[in-house]
Amino acid sequence: MKFVCSQNDFSNNLSLVSRAVPTRPTHPILANVLMVADIVKQKISLTAFDLSLGIETSFDANISEGGQTTLPAKLLNDIVSRLPEGEISLISEETKDNQTNLLYLKSASGKFQIRTISADEFPPLPMIENDDFIELPTITITEGLRGVLFASSNDELKQVLTGVHLKGTADSLEFAATDGHRLSVVEAMFSSEIDNKKEQTLKTKNSNEFSVTIPAKALRELEKIIHNNNDFEVIQLQIDDLQVIFYLGKQKLTIRKLDGNYPKYSMLIPQKFEHVISLDRKNFLNSLERVAVLASQKNNLVKCVFNNKKQIILLSVETQDLGSAEESIEAKITGESGDIAFNIKYLMDGLKALSTKEIKMQLNEGNKPVIFNPLGGLKMTYLVMPVQMVK
Amino acid sequence: MKFVCSQNDFSNNLSLVSRAVPTRPTHPILANVLMVADIVKQKISLTAFDLSLGIETSFDANISEGGQTTLPAKLLNDIVSRLPEGEISLISEETKDNQTNLLYLKSASGKFQIRTISADEFPPLPMIENDDFIELPTITITEGLRGVLFASSNDELKQVLTGVHLKGTADSLEFAATDGHRLSVVEAMFSSEIDNKKEQTLKTKNSNEFSVTIPAKALRELEKIIHNNNDFEVIQLQIDDLQVIFYLGKQKLTIRKLDGNYPKYSMLIPQKFEHVISLDRKNFLNSLERVAVLASQKNNLVKCVFNNKKQIILLSVETQDLGSAEESIEAKITGESGDIAFNIKYLMDGLKALSTKEIKMQLNEGNKPVIFNPLGGLKMTYLVMPVQMVK
Repeated sequence: MKFVCSQNDFSNNLSLVSRAVPTRPTHPILANVLMVADIVKQKISLTAFDLSLGIETSFDANISEGGQTTLPAKLLNDIVSRLPEGEISLISEETKDNQTNLLYLKSASGKFQIRTISADEFPPLPMIENDDFIELPTITITEGLRGVLFASSNDELKQVLTGVHLKGTADSLEFAATDGHRLSVVEAMFSSEIDNKKEQTLKTKNSNEFSVTIPAKALRELEKIIHNNNDFEVIQLQIDDLQVIFYLGKQKLTIRKLDGNYPKYSMLIPQKFEHVISLDRKNFLNSLERVAVLASQKNNLVKCVFNNKKQIILLSVETQDLGSAEESIEAKITGESGDIAFNIKYLMDGLKALSTKEIKMQLNEGNKPVIFNPLGGLKMTYLVMPVQMVK
Repeated sequence: MKFVCSQNDFSNNLSLVSRAVPTRPTHPILANVLMVADIVKQKISLTAFDLSLGIETSFDANISEGGQTTLPAKLLNDIVSRLPEGEISLISEETKDNQTNLLYLKSASGKFQIRTISADEFPPLPMIENDDFIELPTITITEGLRGVLFASSNDELKQVLTGVHLKGTADSLEFAATDGHRLSVVEAMFSSEIDNKKEQTLKTKNSNEFSVTIPAKALRELEKIIHNNNDFEVIQLQIDDLQVIFYLGKQKLTIRKLDGNYPKYSMLIPQKFEHVISLDRKNFLNSLERVAVLASQKNNLVKCVFNNKKQIILLSVETQDLGSAEESIEAKITGESGDIAFNIKYLMDGLKALSTKEIKMQLNEGNKPVIFNPLGGLKMTYLVMPVQMVK
């Protein structure tokens, strides 16, 4: 393998695939990045794979000799990102019987020799045989992920709940995540405007419907990659029994699906409410952040009293050791006055993810789920279970 | 105690004194901040003290009832920093026989009750009885600290080496720090220009000379406070057997001196050199950072070969497991060619602290100390002990 490329291209693509390199690899080869020089296409492709998430990317290079090898991803990335801008040249000769293969890297001011491991040892990225490509607007993916990712569980024992559930139909895409205490659902409709180019949005060959649970961890990487390269309007999806593949321009993310049935969450969302409250999201969040200073020292419990007559919500936190806090927020309250208590962290997480100025809060007596929706904008539902108060 | 003040003033001053609140207080009262309302001066003063560093600051307030109390610093700071801008009012009634004293804090949207501890329990900041005030230009302090702080030891067992040594005469101030492996010295001269206003620079009543070792940890806080409030040109110093006090505008830092004799470091600095090399600091540092990627995986050892004929320095790092690195830098080399090895971390630390474009490196054969100086600008000497090479 022998090629010359720009430091900038090499560095950007390396740091991109490095997201799929595990910090504590179960096998040494997983700490490496696969580098393939395709002399016909004059392209270098880089691949990293932690067995759950695989990232592949490619860039142009001046290749005089094709070949492939693997290199320690972190070490290579640390070196290449520190090289001065300009051309760098790389040479590697892989002989199977020789255990001390080296990559020679040359820049304007220096040269590096890095130990390689044979590309034969690198686990191949799973392929998807079918030809069903689903096309989705990038904005739909980013808004959906932003609205639900935070609500997934971080507890590896909760398996399917560590993922985000995606449900697609011909004209909608629904994102859902829950950790058992709260649930967030975003439903993206492909409106008439987009309908015109429907062939570009959900274009599926065999069926219009799909349903898949994808690890939140891998989706956070997808979110970051989109954030750093927002130069593609459309993302393609390919799904089979085991994998989901996202195609983003020159990048390809292969993600192992989560096994198991995702909970039937739509049944949890009440349809009728005794109390409907609308209020300013930012005001509510700021007040919660202040009383949270005390609540976080204790049991994270905040009490909300909604007063129909005064049209205010009174937030209060009591701690025996440190003191107490009280904040009042103006609100439009229909239905009788009442009170309810929450885990303040769950409340704040949801309010941060809702994106509109005004929001609606809907609830019933007793310890029934409470629903938050943005007023206008995205179709999003955030459900929180209240905490039973000791009266 | 009863007063009204601006959220902004209260928050800024609280976060400033919070720097002296220990993260793991040895006694509960040290986690608190002392708040004194002076009805005559119409000023609130705040004090925090970890027994080594004490910070006192004051700000204007509308005080209708004087008094004093102490409050949990972190909790109070977390609340006040989140309050909306505008006026806040505070009331506290301290009755000695009542254990559950409270501070009542009211803002536009909420009210907080916070448990206080009697001000009587707060340890008084040490005072200095003499009237000898030393005045120093703020820029001298910041440049000196920047040039030496990094070289002090982080090992609490090394006692006096965890500090910075300050030595003042009528027309100079010398800063020094060493951890036993490297030494950094900055000498600030009060030039003729400043001589004109000599009464403002080293104005001392009894003597013109002082020598003191101050904990680096406290000086890092001083550095941050100066950085955040650079609206004073002069800093006053007061020194006695146990303490140093820095006066910065409305802030006062009381620091407990480090006991013990500081090493006679000036004897360590060689006066004659066989090799003198001048080179571009940034080029040198960038090359070191690249080869450090490999060196940091091993023993941090970098070898420097200086070649008089080619007028270059060749940096090289060898690791058996990962590979090797080589960088070359142009340099003006007088004296014969030769080689030397360093701990790359020490070398980079010093190069980062030197501030000029060009620097001078001076050394002798054998394992004698190596000296780095900036070319122009600050009078600074950075000394590093080389590492013996296995030949």
